[in-house]
Amino acid sequence: MAGSSFGRIFRITTWGESHGEALGCVIDGCPAGVSLSEEDLIPFLDRRKPGNSSVATSRKESDTPKILSGVFEGKTTGTPISVIIYNSDQHSGDYDDIKDLYRPGHADFTYDSKYGFRDHRGGGRSSGRETAARVIAGAVASKVLSELGISVEAYARAIGPIEADLSEYSRSTVLANATAMPDISANARALEYIADLKNKSDSCGGVMECCISGMPAGVGDPVFDKLDALLSQAAMSIGAVKSVEIGDGALVSKSLGSTNNDQFKATKKGITKKTNHSGGILGGISDSSDIIVRCSVKPTPSISRTQKTVNKAGENTDIEIKGRHDPVIVPRAVVVLESMCAITVLDALLYGMSSKIETVKSVFNKM
Amino acid sequence: MAGSSFGRIFRITTWGESHGEALGCVIDGCPAGVSLSEEDLIPFLDRRKPGNSSVATSRKESDTPKILSGVFEGKTTGTPISVIIYNSDQHSGDYDDIKDLYRPGHADFTYDSKYGFRDHRGGGRSSGRETAARVIAGAVASKVLSELGISVEAYARAIGPIEADLSEYSRSTVLANATAMPDISANARALEYIADLKNKSDSCGGVMECCISGMPAGVGDPVFDKLDALLSQAAMSIGAVKSVEIGDGALVSKSLGSTNNDQFKATKKGITKKTNHSGGILGGISDSSDIIVRCSVKPTPSISRTQKTVNKAGENTDIEIKGRHDPVIVPRAVVVLESMCAITVLDALLYGMSSKIETVKSVFNKM
Amino acid sequence: MAGSSFGRIFRITTWGESHGEALGCVIDGCPAGVSLSEEDLIPFLDRRKPGNSSVATSRKESDTPKILSGVFEGKTTGTPISVIIYNSDQHSGDYDDIKDLYRPGHADFTYDSKYGFRDHRGGGRSSGRETAARVIAGAVASKVLSELGISVEAYARAIGPIEADLSEYSRSTVLANATAMPDISANARALEYIADLKNKSDSCGGVMECCISGMPAGVGDPVFDKLDALLSQAAMSIGAVKSVEIGDGALVSKSLGSTNNDQFKATKKGITKKTNHSGGILGGISDSSDIIVRCSVKPTPSISRTQKTVNKAGENTDIEIKGRHDPVIVPRAVVVLESMCAITVLDALLYGMSSKIETVKSVFNKM
Amino acid sequence: MAGSSFGRIFRITTWGESHGEALGCVIDGCPAGVSLSEEDLIPFLDRRKPGNSSVATSRKESDTPKILSGVFEGKTTGTPISVIIYNSDQHSGDYDDIKDLYRPGHADFTYDSKYGFRDHRGGGRSSGRETAARVIAGAVASKVLSELGISVEAYARAIGPIEADLSEYSRSTVLANATAMPDISANARALEYIADLKNKSDSCGGVMECCISGMPAGVGDPVFDKLDALLSQAAMSIGAVKSVEIGDGALVSKSLGSTNNDQFKATKKGITKKTNHSGGILGGISDSSDIIVRCSVKPTPSISRTQKTVNKAGENTDIEIKGRHDPVIVPRAVVVLESMCAITVLDALLYGMSSKIETVKSVFNKM
Repeated sequence: MAGSSFGRIFRITTWGESHGEALGCVIDGCPAGVSLSEEDLIPFLDRRKPGNSSVATSRKESDTPKILSGVFEGKTTGTPISVIIYNSDQHSGDYDDIKDLYRPGHADFTYDSKYGFRDHRGGGRSSGRETAARVIAGAVASKVLSELGISVEAYARAIGPIEADLSEYSRSTVLANATAMPDISANARALEYIADLKNKSDSCGGVMECCISGMPAGVGDPVFDKLDALLSQAAMSIGAVKSVEIGDGALVSKSLGSTNNDQFKATKKGITKKTNHSGGILGGISDSSDIIVRCSVKPTPSISRTQKTVNKAGENTDIEIKGRHDPVIVPRAVVVLESMCAITVLDALLYGMSSKIETVKSVFNKM
Repeated sequence: MAGSSFGRIFRITTWGESHGEALGCVIDGCPAGVSLSEEDLIPFLDRRKPGNSSVATSRKESDTPKILSGVFEGKTTGTPISVIIYNSDQHSGDYDDIKDLYRPGHADFTYDSKYGFRDHRGGGRSSGRETAARVIAGAVASKVLSELGISVEAYARAIGPIEADLSEYSRSTVLANATAMPDISANARALEYIADLKNKSDSCGGVMECCISGMPAGVGDPVFDKLDALLSQAAMSIGAVKSVEIGDGALVSKSLGSTNNDQFKATKKGITKKTNHSGGILGGISDSSDIIVRCSVKPTPSISRTQKTVNKAGENTDIEIKGRHDPVIVPRAVVVLESMCAITVLDALLYGMSSKIETVKSVFNKM
Repeated sequence: MAGSSFGRIFRITTWGESHGEALGCVIDGCPAGVSLSEEDLIPFLDRRKPGNSSVATSRKESDTPKILSGVFEGKTTGTPISVIIYNSDQHSGDYDDIKDLYRPGHADFTYDSKYGFRDHRGGGRSSGRETAARVIAGAVASKVLSELGISVEAYARAIGPIEADLSEYSRSTVLANATAMPDISANARALEYIADLKNKSDSCGGVMECCISGMPAGVGDPVFDKLDALLSQAAMSIGAVKSVEIGDGALVSKSLGSTNNDQFKATKKGITKKTNHSGGILGGISDSSDIIVRCSVKPTPSISRTQKTVNKAGENTDIEIKGRHDPVIVPRAVVVLESMCAITVLDALLYGMSSKIETVKSVFNKM
Repeated sequence: MAGSSFGRIFRITTWGESHGEALGCVIDGCPAGVSLSEEDLIPFLDRRKPGNSSVATSRKESDTPKILSGVFEGKTTGTPISVIIYNSDQHSGDYDDIKDLYRPGHADFTYDSKYGFRDHRGGGRSSGRETAARVIAGAVASKVLSELGISVEAYARAIGPIEADLSEYSRSTVLANATAMPDISANARALEYIADLKNKSDSCGGVMECCISGMPAGVGDPVFDKLDALLSQAAMSIGAVKSVEIGDGALVSKSLGSTNNDQFKATKKGITKKTNHSGGILGGISDSSDIIVRCSVKPTPSISRTQKTVNKAGENTDIEIKGRHDPVIVPRAVVVLESMCAITVLDALLYGMSSKIETVKSVFNKM
């Protein structure tokens, strides 16, 4: 039943429904001594916040985080960091008409099946709103990782059929573009495509990708807690994600051993690989190349067309979904993927610190 | 560090190296009262066993399982079920030449990075041999699921560029075909393709898929232990898997909300869906449709061509890999995917039994 | 590092420092459909609240709980229940004088050793104030258990040398007496003893006990998650507790097999025991007799006498502790023990629901 | 259900029944690079082995451990260490007469209640024989701890009414005395006492204690995974243990704050305490003093007198227990307590390595 926690040593627990009073996150196991304030969280939350552009719902969420514990005199204390966001602009009345109907593509039916009933306001716990809590934890994890020289950057690879060209990738382009694509031209075309879809009362999917740079070789815990296995759980746990790929991903099924193998080479900086088909992970352990995680995201299920469905009493009926919805989820979900990846690699890094007895001795001798 | 366990209530722990004395699995949390003997395990292990056909290595593994605990008078007792397989036919000398070289596409380099050194015989713990232990647990989970009317069936969808037609799917075809494809013609073409690759000292990848039928709606634990999230961890933890897809998977990125949404319909048997783009899971919870999990598998990294690499001392060098290797991993990995899926859904089913207070009361009143 | 969660399926996570802005608890895995409101929590919090009587500190804590998620239309939804209490009456200035001194009997020194620094205001995370969050979870667990006919009742067995006579035990006496003793005369004597100690600037310890009635036989998970083992972790995790006993506890060391064995007898209501030396648990599993957990509590370490100690710089010095402190911890800790016991047995009950395949089938067939 | 694992990062899983074919332990998360062989395990197993003296059952157990994985060229590899012991001298016929009777003081009734049936041969999983697997893990943990300069030593404090004088404590006396008491005179008196009990077909209990020396300050994870809380779970999970005390333990209930507080003092070697009433733990974190864990053990429930009981059909009857049984459990259980303490503190040490960001940076920079 208890499925709202993630991580073994840097462990997060999220709580809160879409249209409840508040939502939040408890981060347990963050090392002590890291500078942290609400200012570190806001840029992450702003990237997820709706109402910022034409590609997102006009619904407003204040998303002002408040750190309630675990930070003292500006630094983490090692005790649980509790962060809360109070909800506002709750048009929960929007959902009264459909509280007994099962929205296609949504979790209404499955929540009712599992729990016997549900908070029908805006999807309740199954709403994308829950991810605000993950983004808080992602901001904290990213802060810790940045102290270690590790960067985690996600971006939109595709919006519907429009694919981004990564050859001129820059973080600033990603942050500036409404689609979170690292390609100015593709961004423009995607905006047009989305505008057209909105006119047709339809929605589209897309692809998002995350690149983790600066990871040393040796992180990940075979055989079930392999780094790629936990990244896959992390990514697939984001609502609307339907595929996860590492490195070349699905392409490997059509490649050959002779081309897919990344040959090693010795350099002044150490052992590296000539190519990175593996996506930075071999045998579930980081190999020091960039770690690449890619996800496909389904089209927003809330569309304003009339759809066939069933009600709680088990009768066939029609449904019309009102309210304000994103025509595509990807632009706002990119920071959620980035957050989940940051949490996962930080947890793996901390959990694996004791892999060699020599390291244990060295830490112990300084205690 | 400890990453060799999987599951929360039906929990498995695997151990053993490729060329060690033995390998095995401890299955903790299996309900008491299930009939179980070695006879239930052997068919699963046989599907994974090498040396059965031209598509697999000629290496022989005895793979005779012995149940050492947790079963009494032919039934599970609820206590840990320990199963062991002794290794035989260990040509570990094959690996002496390359013990200081990092095989491209293998985990030699990353294990050395993490642990400081490694058991170099046949990949040690990172060998595909480890999955024999998973298959044991999968056989047990499948046995329990079959008592509940749930079937879990995996098969090869593609071998390199050759794709199977699923329209005449039958379990017996899958079990009869050397490639584990559910398509006699594709199987024949794939065998030719593989034979050609072997002549070229090369290897190929493929796609495998698992279908879980008979799952009731309501299984899965939001938000991080969503059923699809745990299936993704389970599937990606299998060596050589580089992508995981649920239902339509990567295709959703190019679909529209109006077509991707599965509309509900009321039937005499209850609420179902007109289509199954979702792959049987909504909001991380089963929706009673078939659950579809699909994985891409990379080409076998062990190929007999000379490759560039680096040795333990950090010097550039060449490597020639001898020994007996599968030209494609998929045919033998299909049962591993099936096993991991069975373990995951059984664990989710048991873990979620307490989701409604009415169910808890009803169980309690019979105690 | 992450040690603020407890439970496997009914899992609680507490957060918050003594003099921070707020503290709280996230309860994940509570079955859906249980009636719950703040009114259920307040009586539990009131029993822990200081300022109620002469035996407790005059410090005031508002302790007004607010449920922020997981309850909809008066019933639990199965999703995480987040409850917050805002702190008030924070005399954190009381601690400025001693922020660089290590209070004897407190965790100041060990927190500094572990984390490098600490929130020195009132003990921060190591304060007894943290237990308010446990009591919230205990109230929820007790509510669920009461629906199953299980009662969990704790009381003071001894205050310093004064022992309670249990022969006239009643819950109402426990709740009415300032000491939480189930004995009016002992309560009066204990109050005198405590008044005398206050005059002497000293403090005392005591014994508290919890009785769990109505548990069916068959709950608990050998071998490390035995019911008594988890109750011991739960009880010992309460600050100031220094011993845990089950049933006859320490007395068994001097008893004989012939007298300590509880003989079974058949009754109309089923199999029971003639005596209950075992304290309701055999082999880590409930035996249907009352479960008895008993703890010794150390004297409040904060006393207003001058004591020798060391400062952060490692220099010997004197310390005078000001502020308002309980002369004895037991009366307010009784509800914390009750809470931890309720959480533990509910978790064990839910976690063990799948122990028989027949039960699994029966639940599954109704899904 | 799954309760056979213990530890978060140094995680052990035990399996095996008393009279099954074998029993064993899987140790996951042991740091790589530690010298280890069967020779390290045997002295621990010998201390637990029956048949060594007059105080123990004459039953013989071969207890020859075999390491099957996780060790290569004499060193741990960081992968799971699987160790097996094959059972021999299985007089399981001894139990045929009583297979439908519930032995008083044993777990027969509760196992039947939980699982529906049980392996009745010698207690099956509830037998003390299970602890052989714990001792294996304890030997490995002790080996690792010894490399860090930490010693873990347990001994018998009391056998029935006879208490040991600790003033002349030496490890060699403990190992030489049949009772595991660190006092030659008490050992002699205890042997007489036990001989007398055997004549009377009775059994007795006792007290065992473990002292952990060399632990640095700062180990333990508040608030539920406090070091004393996990030590309590560990100790109470040993069959027959009915109380756990830390430091002064139950005595604190009658002490005063002015005497129970351990005052700190600065010394050349760092901050220490003038006394050690706390038993080496403050606020759940080690304080660098010796950690003291003390347990009361109940009398062996198997006695050869006729006792009243109930059979599986729920009828009152008599029972006579045959077979060979220890008149007191303590002498052989001492090494089990030592093992569980070693496992617990090593796990806490490894799990807490990431408590300070400075330590994380220092480890990371060397990767």
